Amino acid sequence: MITKAAIYHRSHSSYSYTYDKETLHLRIRTAKGEVDNAILRIGDPYDWTSGGGGGNLNAEDAIGWSGGENFVMEKECETELFDYWFCEAQPRFFRARYAFILEGKEDETLLVTEKQIFTITDNADPVLSQLLNFYCFPYMNPIDVFSPPQWVKETVWYQIFPERFANGDPSISPSNALPWGSEDPKTNSFFGGDLQGVIDHLDYLQDLGITGLYFTPITEGKTNHKYDTIDYLNVDPAFGDEDTVRTLITEAHKRGMKVMLDAVFNHIGADSLQWQDVIKHGKYSKYIDWFYVEQFPLIDESKKDQHSKEYLNYRAFAFAQNMPKLNTENPEVMEYLLEVGRYWVRNFNIDAWRLDVANEVDQRFWRRFRDELKAIKPEIYILGEAWHDSMNWLAGDQFDAVMNYPLSDAMIGFFAHGNLNANQFKYAVNDVNTSYPIAVNEVAFSLLDSHDTARILHRCNGNKEKVKLAYLFQFTHSGTPCIYYGSEIGLDGGADPLNRKCMIWDESKHDMDMKHHIMQIIKLRKQHPALRAHRINWLMSDDEKQCLIYQKVLKDECITVVMNNSANTVDITLPDVLSNHNVTDIYNDTACKLEETLTLTPFSFAMYQNEK
Amino acid sequence: MITKAAIYHRSHSSYSYTYDKETLHLRIRTAKGEVDNAILRIGDPYDWTSGGGGGNLNAEDAIGWSGGENFVMEKECETELFDYWFCEAQPRFFRARYAFILEGKEDETLLVTEKQIFTITDNADPVLSQLLNFYCFPYMNPIDVFSPPQWVKETVWYQIFPERFANGDPSISPSNALPWGSEDPKTNSFFGGDLQGVIDHLDYLQDLGITGLYFTPITEGKTNHKYDTIDYLNVDPAFGDEDTVRTLITEAHKRGMKVMLDAVFNHIGADSLQWQDVIKHGKYSKYIDWFYVEQFPLIDESKKDQHSKEYLNYRAFAFAQNMPKLNTENPEVMEYLLEVGRYWVRNFNIDAWRLDVANEVDQRFWRRFRDELKAIKPEIYILGEAWHDSMNWLAGDQFDAVMNYPLSDAMIGFFAHGNLNANQFKYAVNDVNTSYPIAVNEVAFSLLDSHDTARILHRCNGNKEKVKLAYLFQFTHSGTPCIYYGSEIGLDGGADPLNRKCMIWDESKHDMDMKHHIMQIIKLRKQHPALRAHRINWLMSDDEKQCLIYQKVLKDECITVVMNNSANTVDITLPDVLSNHNVTDIYNDTACKLEETLTLTPFSFAMYQNEK
Repeated sequence: MITKAAIYHRSHSSYSYTYDKETLHLRIRTAKGEVDNAILRIGDPYDWTSGGGGGNLNAEDAIGWSGGENFVMEKECETELFDYWFCEAQPRFFRARYAFILEGKEDETLLVTEKQIFTITDNADPVLSQLLNFYCFPYMNPIDVFSPPQWVKETVWYQIFPERFANGDPSISPSNALPWGSEDPKTNSFFGGDLQGVIDHLDYLQDLGITGLYFTPITEGKTNHKYDTIDYLNVDPAFGDEDTVRTLITEAHKRGMKVMLDAVFNHIGADSLQWQDVIKHGKYSKYIDWFYVEQFPLIDESKKDQHSKEYLNYRAFAFAQNMPKLNTENPEVMEYLLEVGRYWVRNFNIDAWRLDVANEVDQRFWRRFRDELKAIKPEIYILGEAWHDSMNWLAGDQFDAVMNYPLSDAMIGFFAHGNLNANQFKYAVNDVNTSYPIAVNEVAFSLLDSHDTARILHRCNGNKEKVKLAYLFQFTHSGTPCIYYGSEIGLDGGADPLNRKCMIWDESKHDMDMKHHIMQIIKLRKQHPALRAHRINWLMSDDEKQCLIYQKVLKDECITVVMNNSANTVDITLPDVLSNHNVTDIYNDTACKLEETLTLTPFSFAMYQNEK
Repeated sequence: MITKAAIYHRSHSSYSYTYDKETLHLRIRTAKGEVDNAILRIGDPYDWTSGGGGGNLNAEDAIGWSGGENFVMEKECETELFDYWFCEAQPRFFRARYAFILEGKEDETLLVTEKQIFTITDNADPVLSQLLNFYCFPYMNPIDVFSPPQWVKETVWYQIFPERFANGDPSISPSNALPWGSEDPKTNSFFGGDLQGVIDHLDYLQDLGITGLYFTPITEGKTNHKYDTIDYLNVDPAFGDEDTVRTLITEAHKRGMKVMLDAVFNHIGADSLQWQDVIKHGKYSKYIDWFYVEQFPLIDESKKDQHSKEYLNYRAFAFAQNMPKLNTENPEVMEYLLEVGRYWVRNFNIDAWRLDVANEVDQRFWRRFRDELKAIKPEIYILGEAWHDSMNWLAGDQFDAVMNYPLSDAMIGFFAHGNLNANQFKYAVNDVNTSYPIAVNEVAFSLLDSHDTARILHRCNGNKEKVKLAYLFQFTHSGTPCIYYGSEIGLDGGADPLNRKCMIWDESKHDMDMKHHIMQIIKLRKQHPALRAHRINWLMSDDEKQCLIYQKVLKDECITVVMNNSANTVDITLPDVLSNHNVTDIYNDTACKLEETLTLTPFSFAMYQNEK
């Protein structure tokens, strides 16, 4: 029996969306292993019975069974609990009425409609299915199609924490700056990194294969991370000035690199003009409505002593006294921040905004932000920080993408912590992928570490081979991958502040093996569109051996990735597509003939392309 | 065993939303009858461990088990397949991290998180639950709260099709107008109804208890229904002029009635200036980008002969040649239609817009529409026409409500067609209710018939007692109920054009029993807030007897509705709340003492309020 309670579909969601102006994507979820075939029944709401009979969608007696068209759905993937079925359709008149036919074991057939699930029996009157019960995709309006910039899919990002990347101009370093890399950073340390330092090392990044630079904030702030903005329009003087930024962006663009800045709009720094005015003038401050002040005094020192979280009498990011939350509903604040957004695009031609704490800012603001920014630069990439399921922000009206931390968690779980086995990893990746439209996944920002997490090497407990496997997976998966500065040469470090160590520029101290690996997978990702494609075919996921085999497929291209995520040497039986085939080992650029089994040394991997 | 595959929750959906600025509503769905208790575990993302330990949501080792608070969830309702569990919470800092604990039979306990469902065993390390896996409601920003106007919940609507309601000014009737009610209407009939006719009968409507008038289009159009707009700013000359509208609205407002007009923005009429210009100037028309013209000639007559649906070389509503679809993405069109929206509010002070074919117009347009209209009149009600699940349009950024046709379908199925039995009806109603936030249901537009459907009396095959039960349910359910002109006095008619007969003004021909029933349930709905409240407790749903008992509860008030939807006299065993109690029969305004059983004659009903 098919478990009816496990079947899920909802129109206008990750299960039903416009992929492009002509194409509708439809998914349905069923309990794992219960359904043999899934069929999409779809037709025009106003002409269900083809040939001009003219079904009237409002008529109570319109019969669904005799009209519409059938499309066989493909099994998209499986997760721990579910099978997902997928189909695309191109409705001639940009609208659709549809239902699903599920074929189970022992001749069980279900018709899944919006209102009800019907069991279809051989002698049942097909009239049982009324069109009114069917799902509806009322109209595919082009403007509502989720349309991220095309260049994002091709980009390889590099995240720079400016204070720690390179010191290119010691004359502007903070007076209390420590000698570069002289000690492990503390929360308040300064080392003098700046934007000239980035300019100086653009060739290094170009050699690595980087095509996008993502900077944590470069505008004036009191801390080393600058998330406590003092002035959104002013480059932090310890980082450089407008000319430095202009040179940096020009030089980056010359090298084919996009530039993404960090928009910290959820909160402002306590040292900002606006908050200082509130501190000074209290409820008479002209900025009082820029914030959420509940009462004065702003800080209740007595409560602070009791470790109460109630000591702040204003809303803040988390409980950070130095980060009062901005009231983005206030039209003045909205206009101020929108102008910040426009300013850096108009005057510096940046290519992307990363939105800090994006899901704590109101959504109306982000809709305005998108409209305004896309009007100036249609190809700008808008990336929201969010650690959780974020479908609500990714429906086409707000962000182009979020930071794909759920994917990070899966990768960390399998490759680093080992708390996911091979199948659990596969399921977790599939869970993430099916929770979003494909167009969303194609530009999702994927990462193994960042300024907010421990470094991947630390998470892998220093095991470099595990790190290499994690990067291999990241770079053979869809989305737009990012490397956190330094991780490519083996920079290590636990949670903040240790994840923000100074970049090492002494090549003799670089992990050249890691660097070569990174360069190689970046090169291969660029050469082989299939590696960037959404589609992933899992051919093997072996919990005992902790081995994976998966294929990346796009049009004629098919690359098979094999990996052993264990400390043991194991023999694996190759799938038909590889067994006894002549292949090219594209990682090592060598031809070889595979046998029926393959011996994999601990943490080893291979990338094979079948010879044509 | 609890069926994991049936469990459903998603943040920022009908399962997780802000009810008001302080209150979060959370629902979880489980397979029917499997779960005994559901518990919400919720806490602050930045202070999970209460008392100031300061959980760090990004820290990989943050443990969920020891922090947060537990809330016992109530069982909201059951459907054919599911139980729904509900809870509200008021997070102190307007943000939440949460998970669900489900207790099944035989000591089975599950922890349901965003990423995974864990089984909790007695000796399991509670550390198994990492906070990072939990669901997240990042921030409750006031502006994003779905906030429909408060007056809507209290309103009783009356839908008027102006051409058929009353002829108050024969001097402006179309020259081909037939004598009032002289024959059944045909698609092209005119009878001379107008707005003066409505003014003349406002007292009638006031006596009935109506507090809201909903008009199908009153602006210039060629057809009798006026959905083929010629000029959005001009009152149809056969209906009256600006002064008539102004008088109508003033007089309605004097009587405490709101006025809703019909915005037909999906398409325009073929006789409009704009489309005529396209016909005349072809691709050189200045209005060419107002439409979706694929090629010329606009109509391929050869294809028309073959009954092909491809004969229109432009997008239209359905395949209606006289209704070319407007390109609402074109800024010129957008501004034009927004001005129409503003015009009638600014100049005529209307209270609501009903949006025709709303879900075929792009959503960006509706967001702008909402922003612009609410800026002029914050308490305006924006009601979209949609026949299907419409969550996507009801997230606070577009509509206040949709026409609740799924609820209509349930009511028609049970009371009229008899293709739903008592339990199926209960399940269908619960399905509709749980598919939306409670705040959405509270203002959903409920209807038994309209100009787009056969009349309720026709659907009930002439059985007036069934009609009365249907109205009884409609008026004791949440939402904002509407009566289609004439149905209150027994006007009958099948599908269009027969559902648009002339209103009968000869009182001797009124079904006074029906009218009294309508007046009575309107009065009771106004007197008893519990009847309008969202909450419905189903005490009995008997498939054999086709009887229902349900309670409407609000604060101290509790009203129990009993109905027999069958042609048989039946004895029902009363639930404890009624059995042997002294109650007031509020429909008949009499006191009575109930026994343990109650005899219900065919299609009879009662409304009891327990004496205090």
